[in-house]
Amino acid sequence: MIFEGSEKKAEIIINPNEIDLFDLSKSFWQELVSKSNATILSHIRNKNVLAFLLSESSLFIWRDRILLITCGQTTLISAIDFFIDAIGQDNIEQLIFQRKNEYYSHLQPTSFFDDIKRLQRRFTGSAYRMGAMDGHHNFIFHLDHPYSPLADDHTYELLMYDISSSASALLTKPDLTCEEVRTFLKLDSILDDFIIDDFLFKPFGYSMNAVSDNKYFTIHITPQEQGSYISFETDINLKEHVESLVKTFSPGSFDFIEFIPAHDAPMSSESISNYAQNSNVVQELSCGYTMQFSQYNKLKTKQTKAFKFK
Amino acid sequence: MIFEGSEKKAEIIINPNEIDLFDLSKSFWQELVSKSNATILSHIRNKNVLAFLLSESSLFIWRDRILLITCGQTTLISAIDFFIDAIGQDNIEQLIFQRKNEYYSHLQPTSFFDDIKRLQRRFTGSAYRMGAMDGHHNFIFHLDHPYSPLADDHTYELLMYDISSSASALLTKPDLTCEEVRTFLKLDSILDDFIIDDFLFKPFGYSMNAVSDNKYFTIHITPQEQGSYISFETDINLKEHVESLVKTFSPGSFDFIEFIPAHDAPMSSESISNYAQNSNVVQELSCGYTMQFSQYNKLKTKQTKAFKFK
Repeated sequence: MIFEGSEKKAEIIINPNEIDLFDLSKSFWQELVSKSNATILSHIRNKNVLAFLLSESSLFIWRDRILLITCGQTTLISAIDFFIDAIGQDNIEQLIFQRKNEYYSHLQPTSFFDDIKRLQRRFTGSAYRMGAMDGHHNFIFHLDHPYSPLADDHTYELLMYDISSSASALLTKPDLTCEEVRTFLKLDSILDDFIIDDFLFKPFGYSMNAVSDNKYFTIHITPQEQGSYISFETDINLKEHVESLVKTFSPGSFDFIEFIPAHDAPMSSESISNYAQNSNVVQELSCGYTMQFSQYNKLKTKQTKAFKFK
Repeated sequence: MIFEGSEKKAEIIINPNEIDLFDLSKSFWQELVSKSNATILSHIRNKNVLAFLLSESSLFIWRDRILLITCGQTTLISAIDFFIDAIGQDNIEQLIFQRKNEYYSHLQPTSFFDDIKRLQRRFTGSAYRMGAMDGHHNFIFHLDHPYSPLADDHTYELLMYDISSSASALLTKPDLTCEEVRTFLKLDSILDDFIIDDFLFKPFGYSMNAVSDNKYFTIHITPQEQGSYISFETDINLKEHVESLVKTFSPGSFDFIEFIPAHDAPMSSESISNYAQNSNVVQELSCGYTMQFSQYNKLKTKQTKAFKFK
């Protein structure tokens, strides 16, 4: 079964003096999600953030911004269009759109370049590729519009590919429970005082949203041994958990992405045991953030066999 | 300018007792090439091999086999169908079809999986992926039909990505000549006694075919700094030139592929200065060959910036 785990992601910040996103109804969010060809499975909320778990990833809503992450063959770009039409283009303070490189891009309804052409009908913006074209990379587009993130506005993404056979076996066993996944992930040690909403897909797959105060944490697992992909995204400090999570999954390769307010101290580059860093791209973006994209490959000495298609 | 350098490749071996491919006319080969959406630019021949340089790569013909390599958005699979219809399915001794992973696969008219579905309407065969899905990889399909290659039937492919700025600058300069490319490649030291046919594309790109006795050598260069790709394929011993060619181009990464008759001595794995081997896949194929796919990444210590799209 081919499933494109690689995500598309949009963060859209609006003018809070004009609109409070908490005034919008659940049916509005249902319609927005349906534009991307996904559906809402469940939700959790606290006073600062509303989190929808989707059939393909997640939607987080704060009073002044949304974060929509979708995978598979979804059309996130259509949800962005719907949102802007509803909110009004003049009320958009910033829009940051990312796509990770895909492995079945011939099955995608649109490419990154198609998507940004649509955005550029409304906005002027800048587009970048972080990472080599022939390796893992991340495409990003943002509006050419000044924005000043708060000092503590840090975002982290950890993306793991080609996980160990034992991790894959555990995460694809037929009687798996959410509790077992949480234990395997040692979530207790990462998420203190978060409300958690998680879901196991049939036959495979696990998604989790968690919120605490104004913080979010989301995990999406495509565990099939051939083409496995695990993503973590959060605005709590994920850096201190990378080494442990990498040890848990022992991926063939992984990417670590960090957004910090521009002009902050220069980004450091982490050294991870048994992995060689293959790419370390740092780019200051005119939307107020500096983005770092690092890619690591497991040091291999073993000869392997080919994967035979059935 | 986006150009998919990654090649599709078919080697088809026929029953020499029934057909001599040298009896077929140039117009037959023109029609075959046109099925893949390419055209013939020029040709060279000696008594054993006829070599066409194409608008997208190369076609080599021996009395009992063809080797068709096409890049860009070509439809090599349609040329295979045309060839089999003309020659007769019963006269096909072996068919080996490869596709390298592509970087603009959403622009391809078909995927590897679409192509092998077409082949499987006529033949039973086996399909493999050599290399990780999230890294460089090579798809291969062959017929489930015994074939015994000659002892000296070795084929080599060297594929280099993301070449140095200085190599890219030289190979994209406006007044470049074929002679300068040959000198840069130190072709004299590699090709002794070969007939050479080469061509410079506008605005960029270089292709070369060479033949000697029953041996072939072909080079295709996509030199644009963003998305550069250089491929070498030959049945002379390319192994002894890898270190020197890698030094010439200083690629960010490269793949080395070798086909040898199955049951030959186990494949060795080369160590290349300043590069880490990231993948070493060895697979014995039931079509009579053992295939090795090795992938290397340049050891990097430098932080880089993103690529900004204009």
